[in-house]
Order: sequence, then C-alpha cells, then structure tokens
Amino acid sequence: MIKILKLDHRPERDKRITTHCALVARAFCAEEFYYSGIEDYRIEENIKNIKEKWGGDFKIEYVEKPSAFIKKVKEEKKTIIIHLTMYGEQIIKIINNVSSKINIEKLDLLIVVGGPKVPKLYYELADYNVSVTNQPQSEVGALAVILYLLNPDALNEKDFKNNKIKLIPNNTYKDVINLK
Amino acid sequence: MIKILKLDHRPERDKRITTHCALVARAFCAEEFYYSGIEDYRIEENIKNIKEKWGGDFKIEYVEKPSAFIKKVKEEKKTIIIHLTMYGEQIIKIINNVSSKINIEKLDLLIVVGGPKVPKLYYELADYNVSVTNQPQSEVGALAVILYLLNPDALNEKDFKNNKIKLIPNNTYKDVINLK
Repeated sequence: MIKILKLDHRPERDKRITTHCALVARAFCAEEFYYSGIEDYRIEENIKNIKEKWGGDFKIEYVEKPSAFIKKVKEEKKTIIIHLTMYGEQIIKIINNVSSKINIEKLDLLIVVGGPKVPKLYYELADYNVSVTNQPQSEVGALAVILYLLNPDALNEKDFKNNKIKLIPNNTYKDVINLK
Repeated sequence: MIKILKLDHRPERDKRITTHCALVARAFCAEEFYYSGIEDYRIEENIKNIKEKWGGDFKIEYVEKPSAFIKKVKEEKKTIIIHLTMYGEQIIKIINNVSSKINIEKLDLLIVVGGPKVPKLYYELADYNVSVTNQPQSEVGALAVILYLLNPDALNEKDFKNNKIKLIPNNTYKDVINLK
C-alpha cells in the first residue's frame, strides 16, 4: 500500500500542482492521497470525477495536522516514511532497500511531498529524506519518478476496475471506448 | 541533444505547470526548452535565475508558431519528434528504439508536451505519439518519467558547470555550499 501526503496546499497557488501530484499518484497505482494546508473541495471533486470515469480505488482526503498524521501512520502499522526533498540522499541509493521492505517485508509506504520551506520536523519524522536529481526540481516530476521506480509495471497497459471509459493506445490519434 | 516544446502556455493558469516542466527538463539534462502560447517573461526569468545559481547550459525560449517550429526542426537536422499524450502508445514499447536512435545514430530528440486539447496536426507531425500510463496524467510527471528512461544517469550525483551553489545530499537536513 503506497500513500502520498502533500504538505501545505494553498488553493490559489497550488491548485494545479496538487492536482497533478494526485494524478501522478493515481496513474502509478498509489492507493491513498492526503493533503494538508487549506482544505480545497475543488481538487477533491476533480480527482473523484476522474476516478468515477477512469476507475480504480484511489482515495483523496484532507489532513488538518500533517505531523500528527505521520506519527499516527508510523504507530498504527509498520510504515516506511519517505520525505521527497531536493536536499535528500540520491533516490537510487535507497530504492532497492525500500522496494524489498515493501515487496518482501510487506511494509506500507508513505511518501511526504513538501516544497521549499518544509520545517525540520518533517526531515526528522522521515526514515529517508530523498532527492530525485539534487537539483531544483518539480515535486510532481520527483513523485512520478519515485513511483515509477517502485512500480515500473504501471507503464504496461492495464484497466483500473469499474472504469467507464478505456483508451486504445495508438500512434495516430485519440481512440476512446465508452464501456458503460 | 534533447529539446522540449511545451504547447499553449497560458500565463495565469499554467505559470507553475510550465515552470515545473522546465525544471524537470533541466534536472534531467535536456538542453533546450521552448514554449508556445502566450509569451511570459516571468517564467523565463525564473528559469534563468535557477540556471545562473545552479549551473548548466539550459536555454528557455518562446516560440510563436509551434507547428512551423516543429517542421523546421525536422528539416534542419535529423530529429525524432515525440508527442506526449495520454492517448499514445505505451512508452515502454518505443523507448529502446528511441534510445538507440539517440545514442547510436546520434539523432536529436524533440519532446512535444501538450495538454487535453492538442490539434490533430501535432499527432501527425510526431514520429511517436507516446503515453506514460494511458491514464489521466500530469504532463510534468510524464515528462519526468520519459526523461528518466532516456537518461537514468541523471539520478547520480553530478555538478552542472558554472554552478554557484552545491548540495551535499544527505538523510538528515539541508546542507548547501556556496561556491563563489
């Protein structure tokens, strides 16, 4: 089970960035997406509508107290906490270790997606502070790459269950089938 | 040489998405970033400031007529054109072919990043219409994954030349060195 927590959502500034993080999470088969900051029904509706049409079990939910949420997740069930930050260790140094904890030890994973001004507390709560390139980076791009590395199979054709629409991937133009 | 063309930039709506695409392009070592739509000096300044501080040869430029630009790029020098679209073929089906054209035949690559309403013309101009997951997707996330697949080495520690600042990747907190 892979969960994402996007910190400090500000509706005007971050509407599309948080939505893009949620789209990436869903497309790469993460199951749960949480966000803190300011509650924003528009992005929740947007993602729920996509799930309704394209299928799958994806859940999006607002979290009022993100540090308490992380502590609770850690205590309730054995969960690895990764904090994505450009200052962190290179992702390739820890990815095999994390993958085996997920696939062999069957631990859950929570990926905390921050931004430029994440308080030190989140670095301390994380088991791994991890970077995708150690350059100024998009959190959307960094999240996509780590989720791909954890689940490369997401690039293969698959149906999400209860989908009402389906694409036929092709090199020429849009080919979409309505199923229901 | 890998170039990106982001279509149809609208300053208010897309400011952060286009900036994130450019950050991803730079972090994964693409050399040139073009965007069409409405010219926007703010994102150009933003990216130039990052380059100034963090180094490298990255170039950002506005393109008034994107389809004419693609045709010119195709004619001037042998360049493969990939159009990223959720409707396209799975990326894993073509990535080895494209990698060998870049690395062995030494062709250039132009990745065209669209959005939901890309005119059919762009599908026709592309050699490959390609998708990252065939699900509703972030163009930032899709661009990050394709650039990673083309250049996995970007995840290793490296310096961009003429950088004025450098990170020491680590698992605890921010560690930044000013070089000049």
